[in-house]
Amino acid sequence: MSVERELIERYFLRRSGRNDVTLGIGDDAAVTRVREGFELVSAVDTILAGVHFPPTIEPAAIGYRALAVNLSDLAAMGAEPAWALMSLSCERTDAAWFEAFAAGFFALASKAGVELIGGDLVRGPLAVSVTVLGQLPRGSAILRGGACAGDLLHVTGALGCAAAGLTSLLDGLGDSAAEQAFLRPQPRNVAGIALRGLASAAIDLSDGLVGDAAHLARNSKVGIEIDPQAVTRIAAGGDVVRALRGGDDYELLFTIAPDRLAELRARAGNFECEITAIGKVVQGQGVTVPGYDTEALRGYDHFDA
Amino acid sequence: MSVERELIERYFLRRSGRNDVTLGIGDDAAVTRVREGFELVSAVDTILAGVHFPPTIEPAAIGYRALAVNLSDLAAMGAEPAWALMSLSCERTDAAWFEAFAAGFFALASKAGVELIGGDLVRGPLAVSVTVLGQLPRGSAILRGGACAGDLLHVTGALGCAAAGLTSLLDGLGDSAAEQAFLRPQPRNVAGIALRGLASAAIDLSDGLVGDAAHLARNSKVGIEIDPQAVTRIAAGGDVVRALRGGDDYELLFTIAPDRLAELRARAGNFECEITAIGKVVQGQGVTVPGYDTEALRGYDHFDA
Repeated sequence: MSVERELIERYFLRRSGRNDVTLGIGDDAAVTRVREGFELVSAVDTILAGVHFPPTIEPAAIGYRALAVNLSDLAAMGAEPAWALMSLSCERTDAAWFEAFAAGFFALASKAGVELIGGDLVRGPLAVSVTVLGQLPRGSAILRGGACAGDLLHVTGALGCAAAGLTSLLDGLGDSAAEQAFLRPQPRNVAGIALRGLASAAIDLSDGLVGDAAHLARNSKVGIEIDPQAVTRIAAGGDVVRALRGGDDYELLFTIAPDRLAELRARAGNFECEITAIGKVVQGQGVTVPGYDTEALRGYDHFDA
Repeated sequence: MSVERELIERYFLRRSGRNDVTLGIGDDAAVTRVREGFELVSAVDTILAGVHFPPTIEPAAIGYRALAVNLSDLAAMGAEPAWALMSLSCERTDAAWFEAFAAGFFALASKAGVELIGGDLVRGPLAVSVTVLGQLPRGSAILRGGACAGDLLHVTGALGCAAAGLTSLLDGLGDSAAEQAFLRPQPRNVAGIALRGLASAAIDLSDGLVGDAAHLARNSKVGIEIDPQAVTRIAAGGDVVRALRGGDDYELLFTIAPDRLAELRARAGNFECEITAIGKVVQGQGVTVPGYDTEALRGYDHFDA
């Protein structure tokens, strides 16, 4: 048996108990069953040491985070997570590293009900590429493009925590609560599913509030006005600029028609997180934050250096 | 618009005309529809510059090959290719490179009827991770584990071509036919689909004939005897050792019960490639090649260095 296969069998072969996996890890490909009347939802995201996370963070957090950033994409669509495939590139082969990495990955996978059904392992610079597959009732996906002028802008959770955590990690500030927000973001899948049929548009916050709001505005062909006072109330450490600009929070930003607000409040108990109104959708384009220069608040772009 | 988004829209946003893509590139995730009565088949494979291919090969071949090695996994299951997601890590941002890379990828994607429905672009060492999604009628997947003693072992196409091509590329031998076999392997999806309900087991040849036959033998709990005389007839340049050991051919190795041989011959016209009997399945375990030391013929293992 090859070393790659041995590593996979030892650390990554974990059945989840899902009854829709005909064939998981161990063949040329996996075979699974999408529920009748449901559509398949797919996303891929890669995290690379030195680009998306400091290379020195604990391996458990790398495994956790690689799945979390992907589950967050499913959350933004309102999809139920089902299966994942992972391509892991690393130089290490020691048991302790793999054990910790896998523990981090599977801690979140079991919580989210996701089975790892395939993957590959290559020797190279540390990078983890995860493809998540989920499903939702046909026609129920929440798109980025559905916001209308007059809709209200909401966000889950708090903002700027992950950016504060990254700073703490890089500068050795020891702010462990903030560091956990960066290392182990909570993907909002429960909220995303509860928002199906309710939110007019949604996106997950990976690039930062202003940057991602701009994506939503562009896809919906509308403008977005963010209220900095409202953002202050959910800004980590009260730092509004960081809340507007900082990436990696993996909260959901969504819009909702005013006549659906009562329903949103009624369902709020099922979200497993706070929801805050932080602005509104207007005619026009782009994002404005009264009193702030939004250009300077656009998120990080790997190819714009 | 971010540079990443601009690159994606300019080079990777190509609709295929498939009518089962509800939502392709451009949102948080893609939404597609698996055919009724069909199962989803998923595989991921990453190719890394300097590990899976020489960094100097033409970008069109990198794009082509990244998809080909994945389509080959679907072929081995008998699945029809449908959609793909790609994570591309690269340092380059020049138009010519992306243009050529995308041209190579989409040349094969259109031939195979595959739509690229998602992906991400990160700045880092050159690596391409592709997830392919396909489908097949429920219960019709060809597994590695179905071979029985008495079955006959067959392979599509010729063997050792890609290994000869890689040598030519590395040593500058100028054997362009062999180099094309390495750069642009032909995934055997048509043959794979024709083998549904006919082959008892199948695997695609990425690690080399002896190495992959050993995987099939292990999954099926049988032994495999390869006839070196038969291999000689399909060995590139008549080099049997290279045909037994060389990787990257992406041909299909499959087994079939003797009483199904007439049917195999009857369907052979639909395979778009030659098929050759090269051995048999026996009781026991492991792979034997009379006159050869199979241990020395096991393929390359990235983690066994």
